[in-house]
Amino acid sequence: MEFSSKLLENAVYEMSQLPGIGKRTALRLVLHLLKQPEERTQLLSNALMTLKSEINFCKTCNNISDTEVCEICANPKRDETLVCVVEDIRDVMAIENTSQYNGLYHVLGGKISPMEGVGPQDLYISSLVQRVKEGTVKELIFALSSTMEGDTTNFYIYRQLEGLEITTSTIARGISVGDELEYADEVTLGRSILNRVPFESSMKAN
Amino acid sequence: MEFSSKLLENAVYEMSQLPGIGKRTALRLVLHLLKQPEERTQLLSNALMTLKSEINFCKTCNNISDTEVCEICANPKRDETLVCVVEDIRDVMAIENTSQYNGLYHVLGGKISPMEGVGPQDLYISSLVQRVKEGTVKELIFALSSTMEGDTTNFYIYRQLEGLEITTSTIARGISVGDELEYADEVTLGRSILNRVPFESSMKAN
Repeated sequence: MEFSSKLLENAVYEMSQLPGIGKRTALRLVLHLLKQPEERTQLLSNALMTLKSEINFCKTCNNISDTEVCEICANPKRDETLVCVVEDIRDVMAIENTSQYNGLYHVLGGKISPMEGVGPQDLYISSLVQRVKEGTVKELIFALSSTMEGDTTNFYIYRQLEGLEITTSTIARGISVGDELEYADEVTLGRSILNRVPFESSMKAN
Repeated sequence: MEFSSKLLENAVYEMSQLPGIGKRTALRLVLHLLKQPEERTQLLSNALMTLKSEINFCKTCNNISDTEVCEICANPKRDETLVCVVEDIRDVMAIENTSQYNGLYHVLGGKISPMEGVGPQDLYISSLVQRVKEGTVKELIFALSSTMEGDTTNFYIYRQLEGLEITTSTIARGISVGDELEYADEVTLGRSILNRVPFESSMKAN
């Protein structure tokens, strides 16, 4: 792509460094900003810069927060004996949206993936083990992706916790609500039969 | 979507103001920037701010430029008697990529669209008419979108030029190179028969 302006080329290049944004999309976004009042660009730049320089990660659960301890960890109404282990802050948001969970979280910041060069030392696993050792937590719920990396991470943490008094569980894998059986994959369907739940408790969940 | 941080919420909001970027994509982009070194965000912010504050539009053709007169208008090798009228700087880039055109451009900045509240006074039409009146330009090539708005804009400009000595043409509409006839729409196919070209000249274009 040939640009008539170095400034434009530079802006497009920087924009296209974002994931999923190619050169063409970047050009569209940059030209859109050019058409808008300068204020718009300023607001965007400021928001990004402020976020980057002032953001905190909760020192207990590693969730993104404006304060030292995040709102969830600081909320006395939440059950502090229950900790849900997730990869990412987006998973916290997804679980919070269900309004079905009243415990705390622990954000790992990713999952163990040798292919991408992510090892246990790159994740917040030791702080999780430390948290369990402190004794308040009674149950850990693993809510990682159902992939090989997710399973590896679950297992690694499980081994780290050996000898500690803690119940561990994983979120249920099964047929999605609203899905038809004939289109479900065999592994999921097989597991959902093995891990069947009493009918009464399945009714309660609705 | 509930955010655990106002800073994050604000950054996501500003990002989602860009066209085609929803809240989810915005969150993904912002979290990506958070994971990257601060430098990355700074480079992006600076590139956008500098572009917005220092960008010039060529005073002749209204193309984006770092200088008062853009590279194309300033190039003495280009044919200044030929001016191609386009909507947008992206169209200039597209035509430049073909390497088939050696004239100058005139960027209108959009097309007449009553539905979107864009009238002739919002576009660089009067400066085009002025340019023609100066007498150097011998032919205008209309290269606007083949839509009702594009046709309206073409016609409006055509009327403004009445009485001036100027040849006007539009780019050829026809079957795309590589397209199969059976899948072409009727209007395009019909026009491509009406506007058939001598076989010898079609061979020259390849």
